[in-house]
Amino acid sequence: MSKRELGVCYYPEHWPEAQWAEDARRMAELGLAWVRIGEFAWGRVEPRPGQFNWGWLDRAIEVLGAHGLKVVLGTPTATPPKWVLDRHPDMLAVDAQGRPRKFGSRRHYCFSHPGYRQESARIVTEFARRYGRNLHVGAWQTDNEYGCHDTVLSYSDAARTAFRDWLRARFPAQDRNGGDIEALNRAWGNVFWSMDYEDFDDIDLPNLTVTEPNPAHVLAFRRFSSDQVVQYNRMQAEIIRQYSDAPLSHNYMGRVTEFDHYKLGEDLDIATWDSYPLGFLEDRVGAGVEDQRRFARQGDPDFQAFHHDLYRAVGRGRWWVMEQQPGPVNWAPYNPAPAPGMVRLWTWEAFAHGAEAVCYFRWRQAPFAQEQMHAGLLRPDSAEAEGFDEARQVAFELADAPDVQPVTAPVALIFDYDAEWAWAVQPHGKGLSYFGLVLDHYRALRRAGLSVDIIPPDHDALADYRVILAPGLMHMPARLKQALAECGAQVLLGPRSAARDAHMNIPVPLPPALPGLKVTVSRCESLRPDLPEAIEGGGQITGYREHLEHDGQVVLQDAQGRALAVRDGNLVYMGAWGDARALDRLVADLCERSGLAHMALPDGVRCRDTASERFWFNYNTEAVDLPGMGELPGCAVLRQPCP
Amino acid sequence: MSKRELGVCYYPEHWPEAQWAEDARRMAELGLAWVRIGEFAWGRVEPRPGQFNWGWLDRAIEVLGAHGLKVVLGTPTATPPKWVLDRHPDMLAVDAQGRPRKFGSRRHYCFSHPGYRQESARIVTEFARRYGRNLHVGAWQTDNEYGCHDTVLSYSDAARTAFRDWLRARFPAQDRNGGDIEALNRAWGNVFWSMDYEDFDDIDLPNLTVTEPNPAHVLAFRRFSSDQVVQYNRMQAEIIRQYSDAPLSHNYMGRVTEFDHYKLGEDLDIATWDSYPLGFLEDRVGAGVEDQRRFARQGDPDFQAFHHDLYRAVGRGRWWVMEQQPGPVNWAPYNPAPAPGMVRLWTWEAFAHGAEAVCYFRWRQAPFAQEQMHAGLLRPDSAEAEGFDEARQVAFELADAPDVQPVTAPVALIFDYDAEWAWAVQPHGKGLSYFGLVLDHYRALRRAGLSVDIIPPDHDALADYRVILAPGLMHMPARLKQALAECGAQVLLGPRSAARDAHMNIPVPLPPALPGLKVTVSRCESLRPDLPEAIEGGGQITGYREHLEHDGQVVLQDAQGRALAVRDGNLVYMGAWGDARALDRLVADLCERSGLAHMALPDGVRCRDTASERFWFNYNTEAVDLPGMGELPGCAVLRQPCP
Amino acid sequence: MSKRELGVCYYPEHWPEAQWAEDARRMAELGLAWVRIGEFAWGRVEPRPGQFNWGWLDRAIEVLGAHGLKVVLGTPTATPPKWVLDRHPDMLAVDAQGRPRKFGSRRHYCFSHPGYRQESARIVTEFARRYGRNLHVGAWQTDNEYGCHDTVLSYSDAARTAFRDWLRARFPAQDRNGGDIEALNRAWGNVFWSMDYEDFDDIDLPNLTVTEPNPAHVLAFRRFSSDQVVQYNRMQAEIIRQYSDAPLSHNYMGRVTEFDHYKLGEDLDIATWDSYPLGFLEDRVGAGVEDQRRFARQGDPDFQAFHHDLYRAVGRGRWWVMEQQPGPVNWAPYNPAPAPGMVRLWTWEAFAHGAEAVCYFRWRQAPFAQEQMHAGLLRPDSAEAEGFDEARQVAFELADAPDVQPVTAPVALIFDYDAEWAWAVQPHGKGLSYFGLVLDHYRALRRAGLSVDIIPPDHDALADYRVILAPGLMHMPARLKQALAECGAQVLLGPRSAARDAHMNIPVPLPPALPGLKVTVSRCESLRPDLPEAIEGGGQITGYREHLEHDGQVVLQDAQGRALAVRDGNLVYMGAWGDARALDRLVADLCERSGLAHMALPDGVRCRDTASERFWFNYNTEAVDLPGMGELPGCAVLRQPCP
Repeated sequence: MSKRELGVCYYPEHWPEAQWAEDARRMAELGLAWVRIGEFAWGRVEPRPGQFNWGWLDRAIEVLGAHGLKVVLGTPTATPPKWVLDRHPDMLAVDAQGRPRKFGSRRHYCFSHPGYRQESARIVTEFARRYGRNLHVGAWQTDNEYGCHDTVLSYSDAARTAFRDWLRARFPAQDRNGGDIEALNRAWGNVFWSMDYEDFDDIDLPNLTVTEPNPAHVLAFRRFSSDQVVQYNRMQAEIIRQYSDAPLSHNYMGRVTEFDHYKLGEDLDIATWDSYPLGFLEDRVGAGVEDQRRFARQGDPDFQAFHHDLYRAVGRGRWWVMEQQPGPVNWAPYNPAPAPGMVRLWTWEAFAHGAEAVCYFRWRQAPFAQEQMHAGLLRPDSAEAEGFDEARQVAFELADAPDVQPVTAPVALIFDYDAEWAWAVQPHGKGLSYFGLVLDHYRALRRAGLSVDIIPPDHDALADYRVILAPGLMHMPARLKQALAECGAQVLLGPRSAARDAHMNIPVPLPPALPGLKVTVSRCESLRPDLPEAIEGGGQITGYREHLEHDGQVVLQDAQGRALAVRDGNLVYMGAWGDARALDRLVADLCERSGLAHMALPDGVRCRDTASERFWFNYNTEAVDLPGMGELPGCAVLRQPCP
Repeated sequence: MSKRELGVCYYPEHWPEAQWAEDARRMAELGLAWVRIGEFAWGRVEPRPGQFNWGWLDRAIEVLGAHGLKVVLGTPTATPPKWVLDRHPDMLAVDAQGRPRKFGSRRHYCFSHPGYRQESARIVTEFARRYGRNLHVGAWQTDNEYGCHDTVLSYSDAARTAFRDWLRARFPAQDRNGGDIEALNRAWGNVFWSMDYEDFDDIDLPNLTVTEPNPAHVLAFRRFSSDQVVQYNRMQAEIIRQYSDAPLSHNYMGRVTEFDHYKLGEDLDIATWDSYPLGFLEDRVGAGVEDQRRFARQGDPDFQAFHHDLYRAVGRGRWWVMEQQPGPVNWAPYNPAPAPGMVRLWTWEAFAHGAEAVCYFRWRQAPFAQEQMHAGLLRPDSAEAEGFDEARQVAFELADAPDVQPVTAPVALIFDYDAEWAWAVQPHGKGLSYFGLVLDHYRALRRAGLSVDIIPPDHDALADYRVILAPGLMHMPARLKQALAECGAQVLLGPRSAARDAHMNIPVPLPPALPGLKVTVSRCESLRPDLPEAIEGGGQITGYREHLEHDGQVVLQDAQGRALAVRDGNLVYMGAWGDARALDRLVADLCERSGLAHMALPDGVRCRDTASERFWFNYNTEAVDLPGMGELPGCAVLRQPCP
Repeated sequence: MSKRELGVCYYPEHWPEAQWAEDARRMAELGLAWVRIGEFAWGRVEPRPGQFNWGWLDRAIEVLGAHGLKVVLGTPTATPPKWVLDRHPDMLAVDAQGRPRKFGSRRHYCFSHPGYRQESARIVTEFARRYGRNLHVGAWQTDNEYGCHDTVLSYSDAARTAFRDWLRARFPAQDRNGGDIEALNRAWGNVFWSMDYEDFDDIDLPNLTVTEPNPAHVLAFRRFSSDQVVQYNRMQAEIIRQYSDAPLSHNYMGRVTEFDHYKLGEDLDIATWDSYPLGFLEDRVGAGVEDQRRFARQGDPDFQAFHHDLYRAVGRGRWWVMEQQPGPVNWAPYNPAPAPGMVRLWTWEAFAHGAEAVCYFRWRQAPFAQEQMHAGLLRPDSAEAEGFDEARQVAFELADAPDVQPVTAPVALIFDYDAEWAWAVQPHGKGLSYFGLVLDHYRALRRAGLSVDIIPPDHDALADYRVILAPGLMHMPARLKQALAECGAQVLLGPRSAARDAHMNIPVPLPPALPGLKVTVSRCESLRPDLPEAIEGGGQITGYREHLEHDGQVVLQDAQGRALAVRDGNLVYMGAWGDARALDRLVADLCERSGLAHMALPDGVRCRDTASERFWFNYNTEAVDLPGMGELPGCAVLRQPCP
């Protein structure tokens, strides 16, 4: 079991060497254990091809280590220097409009480019060889925020070539070399508009077509693109492991779903993510204007927790926040300061969900370049910024807090990257997204006061849970269907469960075709958001609904008496996108059937249990009365023994 | 006189051959007469250049024919296979941003590309030669939905070359070969910004200019682009006629106005169109949010009828609905299911407007590729979908219905594609469109219970009508001005009547300069939509108004007493965009002057007369009381003898 | 001292030569003194390379001069003929998306293209040589509306090459030839994401990067782009001065801020600008919907005056309106007609602010090409348009009006182009712009009835003013800081004063670091526009706020008692974006401290003093009661002796 620890992101190359020791001293004094460095430093380590300047980095690690700090060392592949581009002028990713994405910021590479993979392997080898046995290097980070700035999907020549090879491997020929193009044509339904190919080299990338491309084509491209990231990361991981025993991590970015984090995470030891509650609220949560106003300085009450639970799964239990917002950021449409107390609250929330470490981004605000308006724990003039004091308080509180305590939640929510892509390829109605659907379900569980495990669709211990939510899984392998039917938990499925086969076609017999559930979706419609339909007994459906032929118990029905949700054995199929009230009703019903206690938490209040502790979080700026426990001030955390 | 018949669109190449006979049997049993096939099947007919697989198509036609079904055979030129592109890599259209529009969906060709024209001629010849005398082939369709997905305007090299030649032909040199560039410079006013050309080869396509290009330049390009479509279709028509006596058709797409359907229709025998009332409502009607909500499951009450009347003109009396929406579609922002009764209503409305046939799209929902979420009469599992039963009811009702009865309506509304382009080139105010203006006038006629003929601007029997509406005709040839003044009908003109000469210049004397109408437009303004101006006596003008110098009877005036609409003899000139109330007042006035009975129909109710029948349609979901006739249920049709 | 004069823009090349004399006669009769011609006539003067047709232009000038009219002759470089492009196919500017901006309208050139500079020098030399001593040519205009249609920033190869050279000159090497790239790397903080360059030729233009480029990079490109315009204009000015003693002018376009007008103006004698109050209201003012509706036919009450005051500074006292809107224009989203009286009001307002001349655009509406819907003083049929009569009235009134009277206003407002770019590069919050901030301050001064001088940041007579407003100056040279502290005026600074050093970095010690002002900005936040914060005593802050550490007198504070504005000596620092009420309070406070009389003008009423006159302008359509002066009708001007 690990201690709960704090850390910080630091860039020695940004500051005079004379300042390092004082910085390290103050970090240690603050109570930090970890310092992440190096992930953007390629240019200073290798300013010209093959010409290395290791000295400064050696000394930086030494200084930090000398103050008792452990280093997370990043491989610097997110920021190849200009000379790398000069050697590989076609290494840039190409956007969907066909434009190369130029040098001058970061992540300017295409995952499929063989030349850039070689350069990456070379520099990672150099880093690993030099620091693999360094006693101060306590962990590694590969690259930085894969997929940030929309960098997974690339429409480059390199990507096209690699996509064709990827497809060849997925449609292997029985009798000859190079892939069975007829099998691909059949699987994709290319007969539809005379889109049949004669050869894999006929296949282009699915951008700039006259009207929408074949969804099977797009989904294959999405899967391929994810695999390219996984493969690229695996290359780095394999190299580092040759030289180091320290654990490997990657810092995932919130709401980036263009590659399969579970798959990538299998090659690493720890999952970390970068948590910017205020930046995300404006940019990525998808909250309505009302909530954006209400939580402008606190962040969304569920968004961070969702990612905490997600990355606990991605890291198979081991996870950190690698970058924690400590003040205003610079990159959202609006960049307010956190309400007092929130930096502490966010930090504790991470620990409540099982984090081993929370590192603030960054130590000192850089007065130059792209992130000069991004707050740090220190101001550019080295004075303490507002977040510093809250970090100090957490450090103090951690001193006598228990260690990280692995625990299985009573409820599981399946999150599936492949389903996210399938919905994106074919949302059917404007604004419908799988991520949004799952987050709505997560919110309902949280409103009910439940602690949740997010699990991948191939999780093999479903029997650990009393309630499982599995909304929106567009493609469900037979194994998963069977496992859900047999796991013993109360399971909520739908809408769009198993609506597509492995190649994005509608299966016949019609969906969901689940063992033990006599429900058939006879028709799907998407609805204007301003045309909700009432549910008998309370709540509404919005945006999407299915018509169900069924032979089961009706759990929810519309005003005309048509079934919306149907139970058969342990399975409930919900054929619509329910609103909060609808989902609360479904969650309550599942809990009651499974004998699971649930609450109705006050608005903006959340709780989370570890093995021995119960945490309460108040995302409101005003105090809230917790029945039987007195008042919880605004933006505050309450830690109790588990009930 | 033809029978009113039903049909369906079918893709034998999408299904196992073993299923065809059963499908044909069920079609016949349902009461269908027509089956359209083949329009996307190039790849299966000619999988490699010159290598033909006719067998399956021979057998498909044979099976259908054996069940008494008549085939509409489509030429497959909307979906050239990949190998065609390989032979002509530059055949793709280029969008206004300069990007080639890639293979992977459909309509991936530029109408101006000579190589693709040759390939098209070749495959059409092959089709026509093989099936021209086939007894089961009762009609032909050229290509599919010309112009759909914004495919008329192409900024390719081929288009540029063809445009220059087209211009040379329009500005012929008196004395030398190759065109009179000075005449073009004068006609376009190129002196304006030193835009004079020395040679036709100086002329580029009017995209990506620094600020707006010369409107004369853009309008010429729009006319050229239309002519390219007409020419391409004529090529197909001429080939088919060499081998077949069956009538030729094309299936136009609703709200596609980038080419002149009248001109193209002259080369064909039957006009057909593809009617998707719910898809159009979200995407193309331009209805406000209120109506989009209200008619979400019924479609716009006038949009379909407008196109019915339009295509009756395009087909010179002979017209079909080739694709009728039978359930939810997949391509609109939101895709709800039709309200019960609407599939029947839409079908009968087409017959009420004179359709010879209504074909549903499609027989069975395809479980693969781009339209997998597009409903058919059958579900993917071959069970009957919701629309099936309504089609069956219409088939039953048709059994003793009268044949198609040609009839001339008392009112004509001129629709002019050239005016649509001129407004698009120069709307003067944001959101103003000719189509919108004409549709507003059409709605007013319909609210008054009038049956309408839509006619082209060169219609030569204006005297058949008692009332003629001719709004917004930006360019009016002298012949048309004269004809309207002399036709005897009450004529409504304006705004922007004759506001431009043949080359998009303002004529002097100033517009409208109509014989018999002493009105001069001294000034034009466009107005914010939130700044309507009141009309004395009721109604408002919005968006656009003219200041009129006149010497006639004022029909409408504003609160300051300035004339808005002026009568002189049989002509009324309306110098503004009137709202519904204003147009209702004008229509009532015209009717009363011409002794034409008119009504004020309840909201959402419409009627239409054939020679012997009067049809009532209720687009509301609630029942409506028809005075003296009792209640008309929601989404219902009422057929009576003509009064 | 000059007379106040009227003029008009005229295009003899657009009309038959036979019409010129009659046009000139009517101009003279109307009372016009000036006629601007020639600025788009390159094609008619030099239809083929080196082949000149001077005759028509000679005669046009002669005819105008013979009627007593003085000519402003424009150099025609805004509209190079097609053959110029043929000689320099790469002379086109390239947009931020990488697309060349094609021939077919105007301004189709890149300021950095050496070939086009040579062509420009050649044609300007020809014009200057031929007409430099022509007695009728009373003034020159270089080019036309530099920067209009977004033409300052070009991402062409020529711009890239020139940018590198520009940077070399800004970072000169001490010891070797060609620039000190390390100095640039340090100044820009390129270490941040391994963006260090090895050579100036490594530097690309800052478009199409993966995420935002380095703000230092972008600001340098903005400054370079401005310098290219200045240099291009200087080339023209130097040529003309070799041949002519007539004053040189350029017609700036309203709300174009992409180049430094002060710098460019230094090479000219007169600043002129093109004033389109209704076009600007829709397009460029940034007014809310409510004001867009209210002032739809009058224009914004401050926008024109702001530019008048700005261009008085740019022209160092000498300025004109070169193009005055006389009726509806064609290029705004909506193009209404001016309310009766407004053409006169706008004209007088220019004179009230010190204009030497106001020229209407244009004499006769062109019935062809891009601006055919742009009103002139005459209609296309040569009848008088609505504006004609108002121009006649002004001409009549001018007869006994005083001459232009230079006068220094009691209040100065600093406007700095460099600050505008810095805010654009890094607004921190969506929708925040320096121009908007300065305009808000200007409005407050105007509501207080104050006459204002706009001054550049390097103005050297600050002591002339009793109140100086200097909001938002992101970079403040030490000299300016010192001058403001010592000038004796009451000075309002902030927000974001001196927030960046010369290379767009945050300075340490932290901003604003002003001598005599003990204020430090410890934190910045941007706020949702729907999250205003209340100011104690009235008003709100919106969009942006700073947290201040200070040791001074609190002028404004928020509800929590945190300082928003702080006074120290003669300096007030406002650390937030205040609303109208907040700015009114600050202005009143500054006036009272400096003993300056101020008013609270009725809504929509403005006044302006010259040396001997006080003008009142009513931008409302309704009459307003002026206390003690009676009623001022809507859209009217009142001229009184100065109080």
